[in-house]
Order: sequence, then C-alpha cells, then structure tokens
Amino acid sequence: MNGISLQRAWQILTEIDDILILAHANPDGDAVGSMFALYLALRQMGKNVRCEISDVPESLRFLLRQEAFGSFPVKNVVTVDVGDKKLLNEPFRQRYGEDVRLNIDHHGTNVRFARETLVDPTAAAASELLYDLFRFGGITVTKEIAECLYVGVSTDTGCFRYANTTAKTLRVAADLLECGVDNGSLNTDIFETKTPQYVAFERAAINRLRLCLGGKCAVLIITHKMYEDADIREADTQGINALPRMIAGVYAGVTVKEREDGVFHASVRTKEPINAAQICARFGGGGHKYAAGCELGTDGEAAAEALISVVAEKLSEAGLN
Amino acid sequence: MNGISLQRAWQILTEIDDILILAHANPDGDAVGSMFALYLALRQMGKNVRCEISDVPESLRFLLRQEAFGSFPVKNVVTVDVGDKKLLNEPFRQRYGEDVRLNIDHHGTNVRFARETLVDPTAAAASELLYDLFRFGGITVTKEIAECLYVGVSTDTGCFRYANTTAKTLRVAADLLECGVDNGSLNTDIFETKTPQYVAFERAAINRLRLCLGGKCAVLIITHKMYEDADIREADTQGINALPRMIAGVYAGVTVKEREDGVFHASVRTKEPINAAQICARFGGGGHKYAAGCELGTDGEAAAEALISVVAEKLSEAGLN
Repeated sequence: MNGISLQRAWQILTEIDDILILAHANPDGDAVGSMFALYLALRQMGKNVRCEISDVPESLRFLLRQEAFGSFPVKNVVTVDVGDKKLLNEPFRQRYGEDVRLNIDHHGTNVRFARETLVDPTAAAASELLYDLFRFGGITVTKEIAECLYVGVSTDTGCFRYANTTAKTLRVAADLLECGVDNGSLNTDIFETKTPQYVAFERAAINRLRLCLGGKCAVLIITHKMYEDADIREADTQGINALPRMIAGVYAGVTVKEREDGVFHASVRTKEPINAAQICARFGGGGHKYAAGCELGTDGEAAAEALISVVAEKLSEAGLN
Repeated sequence: MNGISLQRAWQILTEIDDILILAHANPDGDAVGSMFALYLALRQMGKNVRCEISDVPESLRFLLRQEAFGSFPVKNVVTVDVGDKKLLNEPFRQRYGEDVRLNIDHHGTNVRFARETLVDPTAAAASELLYDLFRFGGITVTKEIAECLYVGVSTDTGCFRYANTTAKTLRVAADLLECGVDNGSLNTDIFETKTPQYVAFERAAINRLRLCLGGKCAVLIITHKMYEDADIREADTQGINALPRMIAGVYAGVTVKEREDGVFHASVRTKEPINAAQICARFGGGGHKYAAGCELGTDGEAAAEALISVVAEKLSEAGLN
C-alpha cells in the first residue's frame, strides 16, 4: 500500500472536522513541532481541532498552546511523525490506534497503520513534509507556524548536522527564517543550553560510556536511578543519545535507557555503511538509516548484549570487523 | 574607508598574479576553507598562487592541498577572514602586513589594513562572501571548492546553530550540497566526532568551569598543562569555546586559553543583548556580536578578572545585574 499524494492529503484535511492530532510517545522536536504546526494550520482553515501529548521535554514546552487542549468528542484522528501505531502512547493506541484517518510521516519504516498515509522518507522531518503540504494548500505560514516547523526540521537533523539534511531541507529552513523565525534564539535554547542537572547527568553518562567490538561500537546504559541522582526527567535527556556515536572510530552508538516501568528502550545511531533501522527492526523497532529505536526487555545489560551482537553481525557484513 | 564591491574585488583578482593567500593565525574552519576555496578558484583562472598556513586543527587537515605550498616569489598578497593585520601569524605580519593587496572578510570590526577590502558583515562566514564572488566571476564551483566553502560556512555558524545564520546562509549551503558536498559525512567528522583525548580534555574543562556574576557569566581557564595532561594540541580544542555559554542562565561565556608562549587569549561568546565584540574591543580585540576574541597578558587569573569586570559593566548597562 503506497502513500497518498499531497493533493489527496490536502483534500482529506479540507473534508474532515472535529479533529484530534496525536504524535508518537516520548515526543521529540519533530513530534511536538509537527503537531502544533498542523494544529495552527487547521485552526486557520476554521476547523475544530485539539491535541493530546505528554512527556514534552522542557526545552520544547514553549511550543505548547493551552487552547489546543480542548475536550470535544473526536470524529477524526490525524497522526504526525508516527511510523507505527505501537509508538503511540498506550491509552491512545488502545483508543484510536485502529481508526486513524490520516497519518503524515517521514519514516521509511512506516507500516501504513492509518486509513491513509502521506509519507516521504526523503523528508528530513515530518515538519519538512508539512511545509510542502501547507504550501500546496495555500496555508499562510505565520511566524507561529514557522516556529513549530523550524523546531521540527532543526531537531530531527541535529540542527542540520545529520546526513538526512538535504538541499531541500536547508531551503525550507531558509523560507521559515523569512517567515520570522528567530533561529539564533531558538537554537540557543534547544541546542546550546545545558542545565546544571544536565551537566551532572552528562558527566555520569560519559563515565559509563563503554567501547566494544574493537572500538567500533559504543554503548551507554542509563538506569532510572541516574535520572534520580541528577534530578532530571528522562524527557530532558534526549541529547545524550548522540554521545556514543561521537567517539572517534565508532560506527554504531547505542544508548539503552530504563523507563520508569523498568522496561529498557534503545536508541541506535550509526555511520555509513551501518543501517540503524535494520538493526532495530530485529527487535521490532524502526526509524531511519542512521537513527532508529526499539523496545527491549527489563534486563538492560542483556538487552545491550543482544543489540551488540546484531551490531557485530552488521559490522562483519560490511567487512568492518 | 568603505569596502569595495564584488565587481572591483573580481577585477583585482583577474589583474594580479603570483599570489600568496594568508588567513588569520590559529585558523578555524572559515580561515582554512576560505583559503583553499580561493586557491582552487585562482588556479581555475590560471593564476600562479600559493598558500601559507600553520596550526591547522586535525579535523580540517583534509582540506589542505600539498600542491598549494609552493615557494615562488610573491608579487601580491590576498588575505581571507582577517579583521586586523595583527591577527596574522607574527612572521607573516612583519613580512606582508603593510602590503596586502586585497582582503576578503566578514568581520564588522575589520580595520581596513589592506590596500583594498571586500567586507560584508552580514555574511556568516568569509566563505559565504567568497561564494558570492565566485558566482559573480563565473567560477565553476566544483565539488572541491564547494567542500571548502561548506566547511567555512558550517564551522563559523556552529553548523547553522548560531544567530549569524541567515536565510541567505542556508541557501548558499543548499547550493553547495548540490555541487556534490557530502554534508553528512563532513559534519560527522567536524562536529560529531570526539577523540578519546578530547573526551578527557573536555571532562577536565567541565570540572574547571566557574560561574560568576550571579550565574550570568561562566569562565573557563585553560592552562597549557591541561593540553599536556590530555595529550592534545590547542588547535584541536576549539570546540571547548562553546561550552561556557551553554550553561543555562549564562549571558557571557569566557574561555581563557594559555598559549605555548605563556600569553593568554580569550574567546568570548555571548547571548542577546550582550555584545562580545564590544567587550573584546576593550582589550584591543574584535570579532562579531556574539563571538569575539582578544589577547590578554601572561596572568590568566588576572586576565579573566579584568574581562569579567567588563562583562559585569555590560550586564549592568543592559539591566541584567
């Protein structure tokens, strides 16, 4: 089942009303940015629309709009940046997972769980795709909408560092700046600010970073206790996922984090030619070529070992062992 | 004395020959990138041209071209990314400082030391301005030239994070990607790779970071011994200059580094409304609004105190004390 065209997606949005927008659990900048950009666009179209989201990182809370959290009965659910319904928060998955009217996404591993899916894996972020959709539909990209989209595009590209950043991505960002986005100030707040709690957390993390597979894989296991010790929420530690891959010589950086319920979740970041999505697919997860994720069991060390053995296999296939 | 036009700068380049290109001492990505982009462009024009540069950071050495280090007698000196002749390496300053034919720069604090100066303070990097000049002159922006310019633009903007990143900057970068730049791989090597030596150095630096002025100023003093302890060259530690400003609540981040000769040099990074160039100007230095530098004396602690008192003054003027 292929995805639909911009034209078809726009037609759906014009036809539906009483809309709930959802994004994936443990939302990142693209999830939050896409959600509120779409909210503002649908409001501009005169639609009755609301959002539900939780665990938003502190640095992204400025995007939340109080008026978006209404409680009217929902007729249509639209999801953004969701590759699989199992990535929705549990209560939302149970309630809406089987009946999503439209999903707007950019994951190559998208499983087409919605009735119709607009998906573009060449888009660096769901927000980049939404920008195309808004331009197609004639939405006025206000400063507020542009801010949401800019946060989505910049966070999913590590502020234009990662390999998913294309010429198109940079031109969309340029357009958004011309819509009034104060990029210097936003980037400072999102990418260049560390709280004292984060500095303490990061220091503990660096001390636990472990190299394996001849220095080609780096593993970081974060226990729930480390959040408590540093007095920080897991949601505010997403930046640490970039650390393991940063060590010179590392092809696969694995961050395994313990959730409050004791279940471990892995974030895998890789470099060419290692494919992160393929590694995570082995554990029922998904994502992108160089950044993907999956759920693991309740034993962090064992989970890490299982992942490392798949990394070893992929390194071997690539002749890098 | 105002700067000259693109047209005039291009005319000069077409008329001169036997050219030496210089950039500022302690070269960063914009200095190295601009130098070799201009070298390649002048070679494309059939000119006899060479470069001189030292202390190039390891992560930028891939831009160096062995064939650029010839030894023919120089008739014309062109400098890139140099705001003041005193920023040239000492031997170059003595030998060529009074006779620079053309300077191509983007510093608002440029003192017009050359016979003619092409300067655009709205350009995020000298490389951004060179791109304009090359387009004006009809230079074919090969993949090699594009790589040099991309490194210049990306490093001077913290990979498009800093407030000097404009819509124009992003569009220039987009064009460069279309000239064949592998941005993902370059960014990984330059911005996302830490050697074990750097990790050790960074850890020592974090432990020495000191907050003052009610948490609005952060100061990091790096002694020469710290380089020795971590077995790292100063040239490979430029990334640390971004650290002090990253602490939440900090308006001015000051990094004071001891050179091999015992002289301390300060890098000042600020946030709106604090002007880094104004602070450094008080010590005979210069730079940009949010990033500037200056030479200090041989007493690191005293130098830091002097700088902090100017920061205090600026915070007070801005009503932030």
